[in-house]
Amino acid sequence: MTTPTTPPAAAPDLVTFGESMALFTARRTGPLRFARDFDLGMGGAESNVAIGVSRLGHCATWVGRVGADEFGDLIRSTLLGEGVDARAITDSAAPTGLMIKGRRTADLVDVRYYRAGSAGSRLTPGDLDPGLITGARVLHVSAITPALSASARDAVRHAMTLARSAGVLVSLDVNYRAALWSPAEAGAWLREAVADVDALFVTGPEGRLIADVEEPAGLARALAALGPRHVLVKAGSEGALELSGDVVRHAEPYRVTEVDPVGAGDAFAAGWLAGWLSGSDPDERLRTACAAGAFAVTSQGDWESLPRTADLRLLQRRAPDGVDR
Amino acid sequence: MTTPTTPPAAAPDLVTFGESMALFTARRTGPLRFARDFDLGMGGAESNVAIGVSRLGHCATWVGRVGADEFGDLIRSTLLGEGVDARAITDSAAPTGLMIKGRRTADLVDVRYYRAGSAGSRLTPGDLDPGLITGARVLHVSAITPALSASARDAVRHAMTLARSAGVLVSLDVNYRAALWSPAEAGAWLREAVADVDALFVTGPEGRLIADVEEPAGLARALAALGPRHVLVKAGSEGALELSGDVVRHAEPYRVTEVDPVGAGDAFAAGWLAGWLSGSDPDERLRTACAAGAFAVTSQGDWESLPRTADLRLLQRRAPDGVDR
Amino acid sequence: MTTPTTPPAAAPDLVTFGESMALFTARRTGPLRFARDFDLGMGGAESNVAIGVSRLGHCATWVGRVGADEFGDLIRSTLLGEGVDARAITDSAAPTGLMIKGRRTADLVDVRYYRAGSAGSRLTPGDLDPGLITGARVLHVSAITPALSASARDAVRHAMTLARSAGVLVSLDVNYRAALWSPAEAGAWLREAVADVDALFVTGPEGRLIADVEEPAGLARALAALGPRHVLVKAGSEGALELSGDVVRHAEPYRVTEVDPVGAGDAFAAGWLAGWLSGSDPDERLRTACAAGAFAVTSQGDWESLPRTADLRLLQRRAPDGVDR
Amino acid sequence: MTTPTTPPAAAPDLVTFGESMALFTARRTGPLRFARDFDLGMGGAESNVAIGVSRLGHCATWVGRVGADEFGDLIRSTLLGEGVDARAITDSAAPTGLMIKGRRTADLVDVRYYRAGSAGSRLTPGDLDPGLITGARVLHVSAITPALSASARDAVRHAMTLARSAGVLVSLDVNYRAALWSPAEAGAWLREAVADVDALFVTGPEGRLIADVEEPAGLARALAALGPRHVLVKAGSEGALELSGDVVRHAEPYRVTEVDPVGAGDAFAAGWLAGWLSGSDPDERLRTACAAGAFAVTSQGDWESLPRTADLRLLQRRAPDGVDR
Amino acid sequence: MTTPTTPPAAAPDLVTFGESMALFTARRTGPLRFARDFDLGMGGAESNVAIGVSRLGHCATWVGRVGADEFGDLIRSTLLGEGVDARAITDSAAPTGLMIKGRRTADLVDVRYYRAGSAGSRLTPGDLDPGLITGARVLHVSAITPALSASARDAVRHAMTLARSAGVLVSLDVNYRAALWSPAEAGAWLREAVADVDALFVTGPEGRLIADVEEPAGLARALAALGPRHVLVKAGSEGALELSGDVVRHAEPYRVTEVDPVGAGDAFAAGWLAGWLSGSDPDERLRTACAAGAFAVTSQGDWESLPRTADLRLLQRRAPDGVDR
Amino acid sequence: MTTPTTPPAAAPDLVTFGESMALFTARRTGPLRFARDFDLGMGGAESNVAIGVSRLGHCATWVGRVGADEFGDLIRSTLLGEGVDARAITDSAAPTGLMIKGRRTADLVDVRYYRAGSAGSRLTPGDLDPGLITGARVLHVSAITPALSASARDAVRHAMTLARSAGVLVSLDVNYRAALWSPAEAGAWLREAVADVDALFVTGPEGRLIADVEEPAGLARALAALGPRHVLVKAGSEGALELSGDVVRHAEPYRVTEVDPVGAGDAFAAGWLAGWLSGSDPDERLRTACAAGAFAVTSQGDWESLPRTADLRLLQRRAPDGVDR
Repeated sequence: MTTPTTPPAAAPDLVTFGESMALFTARRTGPLRFARDFDLGMGGAESNVAIGVSRLGHCATWVGRVGADEFGDLIRSTLLGEGVDARAITDSAAPTGLMIKGRRTADLVDVRYYRAGSAGSRLTPGDLDPGLITGARVLHVSAITPALSASARDAVRHAMTLARSAGVLVSLDVNYRAALWSPAEAGAWLREAVADVDALFVTGPEGRLIADVEEPAGLARALAALGPRHVLVKAGSEGALELSGDVVRHAEPYRVTEVDPVGAGDAFAAGWLAGWLSGSDPDERLRTACAAGAFAVTSQGDWESLPRTADLRLLQRRAPDGVDR
Repeated sequence: MTTPTTPPAAAPDLVTFGESMALFTARRTGPLRFARDFDLGMGGAESNVAIGVSRLGHCATWVGRVGADEFGDLIRSTLLGEGVDARAITDSAAPTGLMIKGRRTADLVDVRYYRAGSAGSRLTPGDLDPGLITGARVLHVSAITPALSASARDAVRHAMTLARSAGVLVSLDVNYRAALWSPAEAGAWLREAVADVDALFVTGPEGRLIADVEEPAGLARALAALGPRHVLVKAGSEGALELSGDVVRHAEPYRVTEVDPVGAGDAFAAGWLAGWLSGSDPDERLRTACAAGAFAVTSQGDWESLPRTADLRLLQRRAPDGVDR
Repeated sequence: MTTPTTPPAAAPDLVTFGESMALFTARRTGPLRFARDFDLGMGGAESNVAIGVSRLGHCATWVGRVGADEFGDLIRSTLLGEGVDARAITDSAAPTGLMIKGRRTADLVDVRYYRAGSAGSRLTPGDLDPGLITGARVLHVSAITPALSASARDAVRHAMTLARSAGVLVSLDVNYRAALWSPAEAGAWLREAVADVDALFVTGPEGRLIADVEEPAGLARALAALGPRHVLVKAGSEGALELSGDVVRHAEPYRVTEVDPVGAGDAFAAGWLAGWLSGSDPDERLRTACAAGAFAVTSQGDWESLPRTADLRLLQRRAPDGVDR
Repeated sequence: MTTPTTPPAAAPDLVTFGESMALFTARRTGPLRFARDFDLGMGGAESNVAIGVSRLGHCATWVGRVGADEFGDLIRSTLLGEGVDARAITDSAAPTGLMIKGRRTADLVDVRYYRAGSAGSRLTPGDLDPGLITGARVLHVSAITPALSASARDAVRHAMTLARSAGVLVSLDVNYRAALWSPAEAGAWLREAVADVDALFVTGPEGRLIADVEEPAGLARALAALGPRHVLVKAGSEGALELSGDVVRHAEPYRVTEVDPVGAGDAFAAGWLAGWLSGSDPDERLRTACAAGAFAVTSQGDWESLPRTADLRLLQRRAPDGVDR
Repeated sequence: MTTPTTPPAAAPDLVTFGESMALFTARRTGPLRFARDFDLGMGGAESNVAIGVSRLGHCATWVGRVGADEFGDLIRSTLLGEGVDARAITDSAAPTGLMIKGRRTADLVDVRYYRAGSAGSRLTPGDLDPGLITGARVLHVSAITPALSASARDAVRHAMTLARSAGVLVSLDVNYRAALWSPAEAGAWLREAVADVDALFVTGPEGRLIADVEEPAGLARALAALGPRHVLVKAGSEGALELSGDVVRHAEPYRVTEVDPVGAGDAFAAGWLAGWLSGSDPDERLRTACAAGAFAVTSQGDWESLPRTADLRLLQRRAPDGVDR
Repeated sequence: MTTPTTPPAAAPDLVTFGESMALFTARRTGPLRFARDFDLGMGGAESNVAIGVSRLGHCATWVGRVGADEFGDLIRSTLLGEGVDARAITDSAAPTGLMIKGRRTADLVDVRYYRAGSAGSRLTPGDLDPGLITGARVLHVSAITPALSASARDAVRHAMTLARSAGVLVSLDVNYRAALWSPAEAGAWLREAVADVDALFVTGPEGRLIADVEEPAGLARALAALGPRHVLVKAGSEGALELSGDVVRHAEPYRVTEVDPVGAGDAFAAGWLAGWLSGSDPDERLRTACAAGAFAVTSQGDWESLPRTADLRLLQRRAPDGVDR
């Protein structure tokens, strides 16, 4: 019998910021115009990571702007409800952004954005409390935020600088979004920013925005040469690779039935960062990252499917008849 | 950017243009953030009028821009499916706009827009085929379009000028949208534009953006003094008033059970314009307008509920036990 | 632009406790066995009041037990998400209770409970932090809690005693539940407890469990004679009556379209207590209570429909065509 | 503690037969083509009466043909599940008929049939067990059945003759269906058949298919002159009138909120017949009929909404706050 | 053309009893607290077997207690509708139990119970009509019932003794439920009870509650040594094994696409018992059991998916394009 | 009976005709009687092909009869909305036909018809505008139409004769429907009609209605010997075979995740005919046919899932993480 989630007076373990949006998800597979029924929820790469880290037992703070509207309230209450210290700044001059998500076919998820000029894109360096960042153990950002606006880009670099100055681990997940900027623009920003990153999360194609190496281990070494102490190269159902110091570790993928691939990358980052915060040994930390990523695709939702510590054990054992009662 | 769907040879009875949007409608009453389930459809004041006129037996053409996306396709196929000659110009530089609609309470519908910078707002005078307008019998516009962008505003005035020059009836429904411009901005535009209008549709508050008269008949006279030959003042469940020439006509409201108030004004305009196109006498024409407006609130949807000629007779008779079988 | 809901380090304005439950709500009107589709949510009289007071701008803490299950998590995250300082104690020895709610007919809501032996019913005096209660300005309880178990009954009296000793306003809403105890049992408990109550909320039938007076003002006086400084007698669509000191105030009901009557009483109490916390004058305070109660029935859900300050203004004004856009 | 519904070895109180169909019900109000979502159920005027009489405590047998398909199974299992002795004869040469039901507007229900050549329409005199009919106390038929086919028409007259010969009360509800036959055809059949009827149920317009009298009491007398001992003239929300022997009784309508008008007439007949079977005095019997008819419109479904004895008491009393818990 | 399901006056082929519950099934995969939409139905291991045996052409009687509530009515009407002679005893002192069922992930079904103190758990020996049991050919019980209450445990042993004394085949499906009792408690009861069992159904882990043998054939022999003439060891997608007398038979699994694993074990038992009742030869009987188990997982629902004789042929043949029309 | 919707001036690329029906699709897998929720849409083999050809960039005209009802309107507006020149002739003497579609198991789709005596089955040779057919480049028919009625059979042969006389390519897809006629009846008609066919589409079993050859290439040769220049033998997930002149081409199947198999054959025909209309070389044409057929099974709906040219490229590439954003 325990009393959980008393609000954190102390400094958080992890601070992150970015844009979260209302999310309309189509219920049936096929072209969106025939979808008819949609569920309303919310999502955002950084807030997904905050929820993921929180579910694995650490204190996470998320900062971002939302509109003075129902969708802003939805984002705030969802994050507070998940135990994240959500600092959702109400910007009455712009609406909360939207995502529309569907399945074009059984094998292809389709995501569209209404975020141009949104409240979330208007983040500024001044929105970030310096003490919050320097008092944390991890700062996590994504390369979505610099693609949103000039002020948002400044906010990311400002935060990274603050964190570096205070010895806070700087984590960057590339999360390349073709709808927001070109590979060339993303590559230019990333090549510059990566020097201030401690832990870098990429897929192969994302890594090649920065360094033109095909083979995963070589790619990781090329990226590490630019700054990061930890490089994580994710290969979806092929597993993942970690380069930390001189050591390359390979993780086998978990065999799961995929229900919704969205959120797997955020879950991987959350798992790895939770392992780092817990002081797990590197093998265990990488296994946690892979298990979290695998678990996240086994049910619906961008963040609803993020695992708790107990859930990760479900991947190892299954009820004899597939029914737990 | 391409114009699809070969147009019909003959000239339409009515031409209209404006912005149509994808429409997400919440299924339950209450704050949108708790709505959970949404239906996808489409809507737009001018395309609603085009559908309404088409259902009452006249040929209607609608012109507008849509994005190169599923929602643009949805707008095009819905209008074509309703028998409207839909000239949906694909603008690949901007997305189709969105509306989100819910019921805050049983008595208050709540509509939010995502249309800033949308394809629909990028309409230009050049999008309008002059021969199409001058060959029609009615040009119908709303005062939503001038609030969308400078080029859209130019398009409205350009079309009105073309129509006037060719003796085409110019119909304007004010449709004031507080989310798009201030009363002062709207009033300034309307006071200037109304000089070129033949048939003007207003509610009382909309009329007072132009002329500060409280009493409906006096308001109608003040508006007619600025140009229009026909002034229609709608008062919802209180009925409506028409001033044509010197004659003021009052129409009693129909007693119906309201299911969804959205679209009633568009239905009223469609009914009146269909009556005008049919050469109905003024009393009959006003009755048709009121009946169409009343019918439109008796079922769900912005345009789905627009009546056909046969439907208008349902208002007069009802099956003895309320069941038609 | 404001940063809301940083977790309260300071003492709350209001403390309440009780049982909250998972809530399955049938989507169609008729006997539950034909209902087929249900929504999942949560509810509980005291947590409803906490949400209501929080939405009207005050800090509220709720304490209660939940099971170590999904429904317990749902209660915790819903309350945190609504800005309530939710101290949901996980009791792994019993499950979270359930409510099943439907509409037997258009005019009769039907609520069934699965709460015997539930986690929520196992509340004990030791679950309540004395400093939390004595540091607040209001303690709010309902007479549901004493009907749940002996330890829960002790918890209520223990908290009332603590509050009285510290000069904290003790608020009691009778909330008679026929499924939990008989009128005689409830009456006996209430007649004893009411001596320690400052603000008492009753309907007429509830008041008559304590004092056998039919006429509302006389009933209020009879109840006040037993201790409470403030007696509120609610009469649903007939309005309400307040006796404070020697003054009887009558409040006219608001005319609204009822969508869901559940939660109206909780909203009334929340409105009154928020008025008291704000130091509103008594007339204003009673109007706020009535407005909150009226607003709560205009949309679906036990607590989803609770008003914010801005919402209360919606009762005074309505968009001319019933559409806000 | 009771053991209910052991299958009736003994003769039933009431025997009825006719066509029951699968029923698709649209979930939203408006033209069927926009309805999108439908519920599947079943219905049929005579089986509705059988369910209604069964819910009010009497044994009812229903006979009819269904196809060798899922919809036939649905009809059989629904009726068995409701405690009706359902003798659903499987006719593998024809499919089960369908009904499609929607609300054209808030005030008009729209029902379409797919029953031409259906299994149900192929009923023959030989399908009816003579001993079943002569052993019952009531034979109930509707004037839908003679409109289905020649063999079905023969079955009705055959059954009426059998019942008359054995002193079984013959009950006929006109249930005029414009989709099946013309007023002239229906009138001709009815004028002939009514001579063998003991209890006749009509609405005003239905009565005038037989006798051209406008005023209800006069109409009842004109109908009684043709044979029936009991004539019931239903006027929906205006109440009802019974002529039994020389006595005319008027019943005030119950004031209820209508949710679905379909099934009210069947409920009225079921209520009256249940009263007759129970030996209620005529005033009580007519009140039961009206109460059953009123109750049936307060929730969704053709038969789901039929009352039990306990439900009829809900019309008299309502929970103080409209919530029963 | 046949007249089906006249209620059985004669003795049933199979008698079973136990607890059936209302069943809320989540519509989407993931943690229950995010499930939002639920279907209402019913279920229970023994009533599933009764339905299964009935669908395969034999008369089945089910006995059990339900509450005086909508859920009790739902259980009764569902079973009657499926042709089971349902003797649902109404116990007004306790509510009908509930199950909540969801999919935690694509591969793991999650079932929760609200059955402590339920009507169903209050079954007593006196609820069972001795003549009913001694007149049947099979008595089927599960080891869920003895875990519900002392009186339910007595009822099971009482029924087994009656059946044995009359030469009725006693069938026991272990159906171990970890939520109801510990492996040690279950093992103790089973080791004692198994002596009176003729046909025993176990999974490997269930069998090892009784006899600690890993290898299936060895386990079956160890179990048979304790009494049962027939031991069935189910291995899900690995097939099954039967030991009858000295002969061990192995059945290959059917290759099907699993939609819902719940109910497979009940279907297997129903198939085997139907084969026994039909006097099938042992090979055929085991094939029927496996086919029924396989078929039951190919569609949704605990019992809705149980096969009829014709359905079992669907496993052998499939339409060339997967469409039957 | 009227022909609405003015046709476009220019001649279409393809003309087709047949029966389209309203389509109720069950939302859950299992026996239809438990399906509860259905979607409303429309379908028909020939109109599916018209939509498919239109989506791939060619002008298609569809001719058919519909009832004077909501379902007829639904068919007309769906086809117009998809860009098909829909000549839906309103036949007020008969209703629009229906299809009911569900999934009996995960692997078997179940389709039932209500089309006996439907408007669509009443097609006559006179409904077909000779100039429309002789002015087109392709006439496409199915062997469903001759099974509907004598007049429909005449219409097919009449159209084929007209087309042959004008050098229009005659395409026939066998589409054998066991519910409409026997293999013997179908075979007799096909053996006679195939002499006038240029492009013949069959599955193996369909081909063997005409010529008794098991091996696909041999079957194709036997069919070609009866007349057709092009014979396409489809083998579902095994790929397809084309015999054109003396050349046999084999197409490998695409590996896709099947969501709904209905419509794959229509998509295959549409792809092949679009390739023929575009003058693609035979290899490319067959690849397009296979790709269209494969794409059509990857999402829900009979025609909603038909590909556009751009969609066919989705089969070759997939977003790295299965998410396109």
